Amino acid sequence: MSLPAPLTGVVPPVCTPLTPDGEVDLPSLRRLLDHLVQAGVHGLFVLGSTSEAAHLTDRQRGLVVETAVDHTGGRLPVLAGVIDMTTPRVLDHVRRVTAAGADAVVVTAPFYARTHPAEIARHYRLIAAASPVPVIAYDIPAAVHTKLPADLVLALAAEGVLAGLKDSSGDLAAFREVVTGARAHPGISGFAALTGSELFVDAALALGADGAVPGLANVDPHGYVRLDRLCRRGDRDGARAEQERLCALFGMVRTGDPARMGGGSSALGAFKAALHLRGVIDCPATAEPQVPLESEEVERVGKHLAAAGLL
Amino acid sequence: MSLPAPLTGVVPPVCTPLTPDGEVDLPSLRRLLDHLVQAGVHGLFVLGSTSEAAHLTDRQRGLVVETAVDHTGGRLPVLAGVIDMTTPRVLDHVRRVTAAGADAVVVTAPFYARTHPAEIARHYRLIAAASPVPVIAYDIPAAVHTKLPADLVLALAAEGVLAGLKDSSGDLAAFREVVTGARAHPGISGFAALTGSELFVDAALALGADGAVPGLANVDPHGYVRLDRLCRRGDRDGARAEQERLCALFGMVRTGDPARMGGGSSALGAFKAALHLRGVIDCPATAEPQVPLESEEVERVGKHLAAAGLL
Amino acid sequence: MSLPAPLTGVVPPVCTPLTPDGEVDLPSLRRLLDHLVQAGVHGLFVLGSTSEAAHLTDRQRGLVVETAVDHTGGRLPVLAGVIDMTTPRVLDHVRRVTAAGADAVVVTAPFYARTHPAEIARHYRLIAAASPVPVIAYDIPAAVHTKLPADLVLALAAEGVLAGLKDSSGDLAAFREVVTGARAHPGISGFAALTGSELFVDAALALGADGAVPGLANVDPHGYVRLDRLCRRGDRDGARAEQERLCALFGMVRTGDPARMGGGSSALGAFKAALHLRGVIDCPATAEPQVPLESEEVERVGKHLAAAGLL
Amino acid sequence: MSLPAPLTGVVPPVCTPLTPDGEVDLPSLRRLLDHLVQAGVHGLFVLGSTSEAAHLTDRQRGLVVETAVDHTGGRLPVLAGVIDMTTPRVLDHVRRVTAAGADAVVVTAPFYARTHPAEIARHYRLIAAASPVPVIAYDIPAAVHTKLPADLVLALAAEGVLAGLKDSSGDLAAFREVVTGARAHPGISGFAALTGSELFVDAALALGADGAVPGLANVDPHGYVRLDRLCRRGDRDGARAEQERLCALFGMVRTGDPARMGGGSSALGAFKAALHLRGVIDCPATAEPQVPLESEEVERVGKHLAAAGLL
Repeated sequence: MSLPAPLTGVVPPVCTPLTPDGEVDLPSLRRLLDHLVQAGVHGLFVLGSTSEAAHLTDRQRGLVVETAVDHTGGRLPVLAGVIDMTTPRVLDHVRRVTAAGADAVVVTAPFYARTHPAEIARHYRLIAAASPVPVIAYDIPAAVHTKLPADLVLALAAEGVLAGLKDSSGDLAAFREVVTGARAHPGISGFAALTGSELFVDAALALGADGAVPGLANVDPHGYVRLDRLCRRGDRDGARAEQERLCALFGMVRTGDPARMGGGSSALGAFKAALHLRGVIDCPATAEPQVPLESEEVERVGKHLAAAGLL
Repeated sequence: MSLPAPLTGVVPPVCTPLTPDGEVDLPSLRRLLDHLVQAGVHGLFVLGSTSEAAHLTDRQRGLVVETAVDHTGGRLPVLAGVIDMTTPRVLDHVRRVTAAGADAVVVTAPFYARTHPAEIARHYRLIAAASPVPVIAYDIPAAVHTKLPADLVLALAAEGVLAGLKDSSGDLAAFREVVTGARAHPGISGFAALTGSELFVDAALALGADGAVPGLANVDPHGYVRLDRLCRRGDRDGARAEQERLCALFGMVRTGDPARMGGGSSALGAFKAALHLRGVIDCPATAEPQVPLESEEVERVGKHLAAAGLL
Repeated sequence: MSLPAPLTGVVPPVCTPLTPDGEVDLPSLRRLLDHLVQAGVHGLFVLGSTSEAAHLTDRQRGLVVETAVDHTGGRLPVLAGVIDMTTPRVLDHVRRVTAAGADAVVVTAPFYARTHPAEIARHYRLIAAASPVPVIAYDIPAAVHTKLPADLVLALAAEGVLAGLKDSSGDLAAFREVVTGARAHPGISGFAALTGSELFVDAALALGADGAVPGLANVDPHGYVRLDRLCRRGDRDGARAEQERLCALFGMVRTGDPARMGGGSSALGAFKAALHLRGVIDCPATAEPQVPLESEEVERVGKHLAAAGLL
Repeated sequence: MSLPAPLTGVVPPVCTPLTPDGEVDLPSLRRLLDHLVQAGVHGLFVLGSTSEAAHLTDRQRGLVVETAVDHTGGRLPVLAGVIDMTTPRVLDHVRRVTAAGADAVVVTAPFYARTHPAEIARHYRLIAAASPVPVIAYDIPAAVHTKLPADLVLALAAEGVLAGLKDSSGDLAAFREVVTGARAHPGISGFAALTGSELFVDAALALGADGAVPGLANVDPHGYVRLDRLCRRGDRDGARAEQERLCALFGMVRTGDPARMGGGSSALGAFKAALHLRGVIDCPATAEPQVPLESEEVERVGKHLAAAGLL
């Protein structure tokens, strides 16, 4: 299917269920896709950070995108991350995920290599020129250690290089600059401004964002679909209450002991433990070298689910 | 060949010559290998940061390591970088470069994904367990945004996980802690402490480092071989003079206009321009999305070469 | 007067007008205070970052706080920044500004010295124990290079150490954690959660913030008072329109040429140029070593004012 | 006395002994000064970071500099830090410490306020114009979050603005650029390039540095004086052995539990505990809000002293 212009609504970055020995667990992945689709989400983003794309081999990435495309069968758009360091490597991923049927590619700034705004622009232009599907910029400074400047995003949108932005920077002021800038610019249309935040989707939609890509929507897709609906209906107090419930649920990401593991291990471990506790996936394993949660930590994830009415 | 324990001397991180359309230029690569070997270097490090490994596709990486192994024919050890984000992806590269004959693999901390010392340790242990050749840690905070702690490096060396360290952190005090710690530790032997600095090889060797991996040795391998020899002979004033000549030559990395390109584009562009001007490689192209030097900038690189007596 | 509990509404961080030779311009300061009070602001924050407190000598700081207290005569609360590196130095400022009549002190985390959450807590506890007036925490990572953790702020609020937070971090998710945490905590009452953002006051108030401390309110206090009123009245679309007008006006902070000056020089230079163009202050000078705007840059500030209907 | 041009040798940043209630302990300070002078140091640097200048009130700073000047009586130069955020505040300190007799002032880049190379240059020029004694730049990015660029330092040296540099950046390559640049520049003479490192004084002197300002020299001034002498005599192996002994002793800075305190509390607490254990000062207290070492931690400091032959 072709990507809606703009893409709107809830587009979960889909977790990648793994078997205990680190292989992609395809039956669990299909159940997770069903869980999300049945909750009414508006698109699916595979091979993002929450999908542990950084931890999946190229073969595993291929399995994930093929499964997502086949299993959803065009019912809703499938966006695929093409996370890699620089243009030539990203282009290889673009070829693979689009051959598998992805409806859009989601592209970060270059990383590992030092970069510069001129090089970021060059990167996006080259990828858009080679990609058969729309390109969505992925602003994730915590991972790539560069912030995409709002004026650069708007310039590339006006050139037709970018069809949207997934903003995982946490910087609402800069995101707002893109949202209002895209709306005001005569040369930009159909541009999707998507927040990657779990914690202020209500605020982002209120100021004009088109949608959200919250990792926590794996765990509670109904909650984010409800939140989206409340926002669109203009029920901002209802939206705020739903958002605050989701913020409390998000507390699960701090379950892992920071003396023993990093924040990523803790957050992804909690999402997968929650999906396992909810019966969606068979095994909560995360990819190496992430440290797994211990059983008391998993119990605490369960308490978060119970408090949110999800168990 | 098996890796000397410890590896010592000058081990250039070999540039990857490219054709104008971004393909690996194998004849130029072979000439560059000859240029280095004939200058008397003690090992070769392919697929490092200076090799633009972050910009090479997997197919191109394969070509480079095969060519280096075949062309040097065991005359000196070939180390191969396996630069990627996390353990599963690095393991894929380890399989490929060791199948091609690499004598050691050079491994950074995880990047893109948030990490933690416990996860870094896990990463190195898993890679060492799977690798048929020794593992050398690559400390490059400018790229991966984590510093390898000296005590972690020493602990992994004592476990037999690490055979050496390439320290590109610029932090001589922390490097010294590894050097003296490795020497003092009864459980560590044959560990290679290598500085990645171009600018204080004399100081690093004076405090006990085993060798150096300077990117500028592509341009002037004779200079670094001479510097290494002066240090080992105890001629510290001679070493300092040679080092200062090389520091001046290194000024070429700032040739590129910072308003127009990043520091990486400028530095790698200058190294390749110098190799082109010296007649070693056919084309000074750097990989996308790096910005190429302009002709006046290339002229300035030439002046650096002339001032150092290399043209 | 005693500080309202909680403090609510618009509390501008008051610019410090200077003469051409760098002395505090008291007549201009009084006019600026009138300009703000007459616009209906709810409190005044002197000696903050926007006040160039970092650039004022102790004598000048004394003049500013005395003038603000005397001139407003208890009509609205006067908060005073006590910006300094560590506890003993901050305590000296606390003594001075409270002797002059400040109604609250605004305190950052320690800076210059390396710090730690345990030391930040100790810092606030010692200051609160010694201060005759309430203590408001000032979270400004861009200046002090530490983020105040939300759980620490809430713990200190529950202890009665903190009466509020001015959040200039730009991190709306973390700010929300304080806002909802303070509301939910049985041991916290009267705590003022104030955003320091110019750009998402509407969003902050919508999620429950008590007020705002926007530097741009020096230039357009009526705008922020109107925005506050629209938010409280529940007119969120009206609020958004007003906020977007203010966001466009805020573009003036990028007027200064980044090749010639830092972001602080540009932003404070623009605020003062705007106050000068609007006839509020006599001289747009900023303190040393800030670089002044050039005349074409000042013209561009004027265009921002004109576009916002303020000239 | 006038500052030697260049200043050379060992110039300890003098700790500030405190009483249990946080007052400057003048008898202990005098004993510490004697301890340093009798060991043969070549100058004294009061009110630096190791002196807890960031934690001392202006009154206390005055006591320290007056005591140092009076007690040393011109036997060796007294440099005084004038640590504060921006030019006007630093100028106040310059007036005070030079009135008290300081022979040079040591000045960081602006901090707290965002800054820019043009503003840093302006800062140093204004201070040099107003100071009756030479100005030494203090490069300490860990505290001020800006690195002084080597080319800026050299330009200001050539202008006559700077008489020297204390480099506490840990970046030996950048320091070397200043050292060799100052030597090569026809317009620079008498410029003192001083390393602030405890850990590579041997390397810094070998590449041409004029001296060292190591905090650990409070604890073991004889060691650093010996190290300086060995270096000047060309006994580089002897120097390396002495340096390695001092590196081991420096391990005391990690005594404090990082779960309970910051790195500064740990390091300064260890220096003062060591001075107390050696009988030089009466009380090991550090200034607020630093967390004190616990008794087992102090015992571990004692073991470091014993291992270094200092107890």
